[in-house]
This record gives sequence, structure tokens and C-alpha cells, in this order.
Amino acid sequence: MSGRLYVVGLGPGNPDEVTPEALAAVAACSEIYGYGPYVDRLELRPDQRRIASDNRQELSRADAALKSAAAGNVACLVSGGDPGVFAMAAAVCEAVEAGPPEWRALDIHIVPGVTAMLAVAARVGAPLGHDFCAMSLSDNLKPWPVITGRLKAVAAAGFVIALYNPVSRHRPWQLGEALEILRAILTAETPIVFGRAAGRPDENIVVTTLAEADPALADMATCIIVGSPETRRVPRADLPDLVYTPRFSKGSPA
Amino acid sequence: MSGRLYVVGLGPGNPDEVTPEALAAVAACSEIYGYGPYVDRLELRPDQRRIASDNRQELSRADAALKSAAAGNVACLVSGGDPGVFAMAAAVCEAVEAGPPEWRALDIHIVPGVTAMLAVAARVGAPLGHDFCAMSLSDNLKPWPVITGRLKAVAAAGFVIALYNPVSRHRPWQLGEALEILRAILTAETPIVFGRAAGRPDENIVVTTLAEADPALADMATCIIVGSPETRRVPRADLPDLVYTPRFSKGSPA
Repeated sequence: MSGRLYVVGLGPGNPDEVTPEALAAVAACSEIYGYGPYVDRLELRPDQRRIASDNRQELSRADAALKSAAAGNVACLVSGGDPGVFAMAAAVCEAVEAGPPEWRALDIHIVPGVTAMLAVAARVGAPLGHDFCAMSLSDNLKPWPVITGRLKAVAAAGFVIALYNPVSRHRPWQLGEALEILRAILTAETPIVFGRAAGRPDENIVVTTLAEADPALADMATCIIVGSPETRRVPRADLPDLVYTPRFSKGSPA
Repeated sequence: MSGRLYVVGLGPGNPDEVTPEALAAVAACSEIYGYGPYVDRLELRPDQRRIASDNRQELSRADAALKSAAAGNVACLVSGGDPGVFAMAAAVCEAVEAGPPEWRALDIHIVPGVTAMLAVAARVGAPLGHDFCAMSLSDNLKPWPVITGRLKAVAAAGFVIALYNPVSRHRPWQLGEALEILRAILTAETPIVFGRAAGRPDENIVVTTLAEADPALADMATCIIVGSPETRRVPRADLPDLVYTPRFSKGSPA
């Protein structure tokens, strides 16, 4: 019999936010592939092999895991958050499409997880309470004019915007330019949330306004949520403001 | 001391997709509020009070749970999926904003969960592998022209589109009209996924094309994912097609 590949979402980082389904998938595997810091979250048994690789090696990691499964192993590939959101599940599908025909016969199970924007939103209220979109700000993945075009389209159409991959060492200026584009469309008071490492010990959540948003608040581990024209802040005496987007929208068409 | 309110996401329906954090929150509570079918998923202790209410009573349910917490109870309000995505967290924030000042002093914890679109996507591959948006198709929540304007904006801008609340008894024609709008922008072969009750015993996942999509495939428990111009189908011999949106996008600006 041929092997099996699990593509597993480990959630945002809090061990209590990993589903039993994800833990069972990892426990069923003899080989565990993933970006080092994600594999490091797991307590593996001595009989489980750990194959950690660098960030930005998604396709070679997917290839290696598929090869292992094709050789008869039960393998898994772990992602932070949800594997289907800017993560490993798409890389596995790409590798299957480009790979040898026998990979199309493999038993592939994708195990969903809590993606970063949901964890960040939960920390501040319900900013994703109405129509929203999730965009990667990485121009490694698509041309910068596509990104700016999409930002303008969704901001003008009234969507809340969750930004993944807002900055990296090699992409220092893109977030600043994205904020400038949004400032031309949305009001200065639009709430914006910088959510770093939500649920992890080094969590840092900052709620500010679009006018005052400083790109230096973001790093690779940050998910940013930009409000829509209907997103509200509810001040509370000794607690942080609640940020939410109402369920009922008067919205204006794009 | 005043009480506490947990707003808890129970995930898409598979008990293995409920996080330990969600179960711990429910276990900590003496009063459990929610839409009947969600509360029914829980095994409660005899000392826990179950207060189930009808769908579409979100605000009165939020009020009741906040009142209970303000009276000193540890209460929780359960949602399917993630409470921040078209669910109870926004209703709680609205109720706090409109309610008595003491509600602003309450300890409110929102516990994220796996939202429906992530569970549906995991079943078919990685259709949400690049930029995507989540929209409610309910015109109880916003004027229909706002919905159609948003659909046009995101389809033209190259986003994958996840549709929540696609139909209900009182909204029979909206999905058909939405599909017509999308057909004017996207090609006939655009993959579309009808994901009903993902992870539950009565799960039904259908992958088809935009041209052939039949609104009758959807009911209240369905989340629909409409591909972007870059979403692909990978045929497999004895297995369902993989549906995915590549990580790298050539995309065209809106």
C-alpha cells in the first residue's frame, strides 16, 4: 500500500488552540516536515523523524514530504495557523500537479487550523464581524501593482482587510506604501490592529488609527487588520477598547 | 467581583476540530447560551445551565449572556465556526456599546475557532491559497446593491470569494443572481465548491464550474468558495480533483 500525507495546521501558536485532529494527525506520522519553528512546537516521540527546513523553501519541502509518502511512509507537513491560508497546502497541490503521476494517487489529508487573523481579531473584539478579505502583502508572490490594485478595490468596496506577510527583511517599504494607499481611501480614524504572535508568550497587540499607524509596529509574525468605514471602537474604562465591525452594514457599493 | 463572559467558537462541527481552549472555556461556565444546534453539540454537566435560543436572535442572546455575566456568573455564548466571522462576537460588541455602562467593565474573552471556509477548503485542496475574501450573501444584513457591488469589485480584482449565508427560506433568489453577476466577470470554467456541513456526518462537498453551478446545491449550512482566474483543478485517477489557488500570482490589477 502507498503512504499518506497529512498537511496540518497548528494554529496561531497557543498550544490550547491546536485541534485534537491536528495532534492525532501528527501522532500518526513517522516523518514530520516543516519550517523549523513550527516543528519545534511539537513534542515528538523518539520513533518520529523531524525534517525541519528554512522558511521560503515551501516547494522543496512539499516535494520531500510527497516523496516520503510515495515511498510508503505516513508523513506530515506542519504549518502555523491554517495550512490553506498563505501556507503549505497550496505548495503541496502545486507539487502534485507538477510531479510524477503516482503522486496523484496519494492519500492527502488537509487538517484545518485557526488562522492568524481569527486569533488577532478575537483579542480585540470582532473586527472581522462583517465582509472582509485576507491579502498577502508579499511582492515575492505577485507584482506590486497587483497588490496596490487589490488594496484599492477592497478598501473602496467597504471590506475589512487582513494583511498577512506585511514585512520582511527583504521587503522593508511595502507596508508603508500600502498604508499610504489606504489613507487616500479611508478616513484617518479608521481602526487598525497590529497583532503580533497572538496567543503566544511574546504576544503584542496594538490598536491604533490608520493616520497614526507606524509600519515599524509590524514584523514577519504580525497580522494586521485594517477596519472598514463601519468598523467601530468601544472605549472601556479599565480595559482596552473593543474593536468591531457591526453585523448590519449600510455600506456603499463599490 | 463581577462575572465573566466567554464567546466561544466550536468549529465547523467535527468534535475533533474543537480546540482545547474552547472546551476549557465551556467547562468554566455555569450558564451556556447559544443557538440550539450549537449548544446541542456540547456535553454539559448537571450543574451547567443550558439557555438555547433561535437563530436570528443574536442580539437578545448577547444581551442575556451579558446580563448573566454582569450578575456575577461565568457565562458563555457559543458559536459554530469562529465567533468573529458572521457570528456572535460582533453581536456581543454591539450589545456592549448599546448597553449599560457596567457592561464595559466586564471581563470578555473571545475564543477563536476553525471557521467554515477553512474546513471546506481543506476538503478539496487549497482554494484559499492566495488572496481571498469572505462575504455574507444575506440581504438581511445589508442592502442587495451593496452585496452586488462588492461581488463585482472582488471578482474583478482577482480574489477568491467565500460566500457565507448563501441562501435561506426567506432569501431564495439571491444566490442565483450572485452567480449570474460572477458569470459576467469570471470564465465558465472557474472552479466553485459547495461545502455543506464540512466535517459532520452529513457532509456534502461538490466541486463544479461556475457555468454549471446550481443554486439548489446550497442551503443554510453551506459555505461556497468561488475560485479566482488563477484557481486550478488537478485531476486525479481514483480521487476527487484537487482545487487550489497557487501561491504565486500573475494577477491583473483591478
